Amino acid sequence: MARHIYSCPLRWSDMDAFGHVNNVVFLRYLEEARIDFMFRLAPGDGSPSFAGGSVVARHEIDYVRPLVHRHSPVTVESWVTKIGAASLTIAYEIKDPEQVYVRASTVVVPYDLAAERPRRISAEEKLFLQEYLAEEPAAV
Amino acid sequence: MARHIYSCPLRWSDMDAFGHVNNVVFLRYLEEARIDFMFRLAPGDGSPSFAGGSVVARHEIDYVRPLVHRHSPVTVESWVTKIGAASLTIAYEIKDPEQVYVRASTVVVPYDLAAERPRRISAEEKLFLQEYLAEEPAAV
Amino acid sequence: MARHIYSCPLRWSDMDAFGHVNNVVFLRYLEEARIDFMFRLAPGDGSPSFAGGSVVARHEIDYVRPLVHRHSPVTVESWVTKIGAASLTIAYEIKDPEQVYVRASTVVVPYDLAAERPRRISAEEKLFLQEYLAEEPAAV
Amino acid sequence: MARHIYSCPLRWSDMDAFGHVNNVVFLRYLEEARIDFMFRLAPGDGSPSFAGGSVVARHEIDYVRPLVHRHSPVTVESWVTKIGAASLTIAYEIKDPEQVYVRASTVVVPYDLAAERPRRISAEEKLFLQEYLAEEPAAV
Repeated sequence: MARHIYSCPLRWSDMDAFGHVNNVVFLRYLEEARIDFMFRLAPGDGSPSFAGGSVVARHEIDYVRPLVHRHSPVTVESWVTKIGAASLTIAYEIKDPEQVYVRASTVVVPYDLAAERPRRISAEEKLFLQEYLAEEPAAV
Repeated sequence: MARHIYSCPLRWSDMDAFGHVNNVVFLRYLEEARIDFMFRLAPGDGSPSFAGGSVVARHEIDYVRPLVHRHSPVTVESWVTKIGAASLTIAYEIKDPEQVYVRASTVVVPYDLAAERPRRISAEEKLFLQEYLAEEPAAV
Repeated sequence: MARHIYSCPLRWSDMDAFGHVNNVVFLRYLEEARIDFMFRLAPGDGSPSFAGGSVVARHEIDYVRPLVHRHSPVTVESWVTKIGAASLTIAYEIKDPEQVYVRASTVVVPYDLAAERPRRISAEEKLFLQEYLAEEPAAV
Repeated sequence: MARHIYSCPLRWSDMDAFGHVNNVVFLRYLEEARIDFMFRLAPGDGSPSFAGGSVVARHEIDYVRPLVHRHSPVTVESWVTKIGAASLTIAYEIKDPEQVYVRASTVVVPYDLAAERPRRISAEEKLFLQEYLAEEPAAV
């Protein structure tokens, strides 16, 4: 089982008035990792359709440790925990070599932009996603 | 059981390149509603301590319908679904009179900024929170 | 000479780690005021074209006083200081009854989205903009 | 004369509903470059005081070309165009090898956080800044 590794640079403005990376901003980090995973890797594996659109149906996110701005990036590891007929679930950990900051998961629905409606996952996409499929979600 | 009602103005920049309010931005709306609920109302009811600090431990959020920018605000209704010894769970609906856009919940941990650690919920805070307590979470 | 008055709600997240509304965020307030001015008022006065697109060519912004998050909105007053053949200049003050926080100006270029290029200001738009035209820019 | 070079990663969410990097977001890029310049480099050259605080007094920014999200970073080149008694002016270009997207300048005022007031630039800081001093601002 592979994990997609995304090196995520922080911005100073990611911190809020309490001096920590704001809880909402971590979902931006997940978005960047997910787009890198689905938009950048998928086409190379023959799944141009994901680039055409997908919709977030649900997030779950657990905040394990606070994070302060620094110049080195954090790592977002992503993998797939469920492949349904018309949705998939991505799990993530936001971490560095010392510790985990966030564990999360997102239900994504592929979307047909032309027809303006959700669509099924193709056989080709399934093949690609299965490389990243792990039975276990992130342990919280 | 009361619900806290927050009228949440949108910003044009809340939309992403797909022309919808971005999924991450809805968590900003929840943050605004939660701060309004906990920072503004609580002190008047004798709970200055919440203003001193609290930490988000977890979010769950379901996206029911897309939302496009408009000049009228959306309503964020908030209530309490669980009061623990050292945490509480807030449920929300983001809606307008016609429909619901988002259902979500957040686990909040009161935080002692001086001691730099989580703290227990006081008896006084419990009284305040119980006014907003409902057994049922938002139906998804 | 009229000024366009926009009541601009703050968000808690507009503050940065120094506990003030971040300098970049004030440009969001200007954006909201400008959109309210150009997208909302203009159509009612017969200038649907502005809603079709416009591009920011330049900002100048002076920070007069720091602003801390509060629950009452600030006021953004906007007016027009220059109407060119294919651009206009909007001046602004961000203020409340006690003081001015920011003075700024923006050069806006009307844009033809279909043709993908800048376009001239129509006679009709000029009439609308002239109501807000003042010779003097904001005094800094 | 040296220029400070900052490699600035974009985020997908930097785009607005028109599908371009939003004009306000470019000021975030300038902020990241400026913080990298002043907070990270200055201390190593013996100017810890800049890290203690500084305030933006003014921005001027010209938008030369639209920018669309991509996975490769843009470069922010920064240099100093004026060193006053209690302020300095930084000029920037946001570019890639092919073209320039933005030219801008910022007046920064060093700030004494303990005394809560602006302060003078030290002789030591002047020496550091002079390495980046160029008489000419960015040509617009």
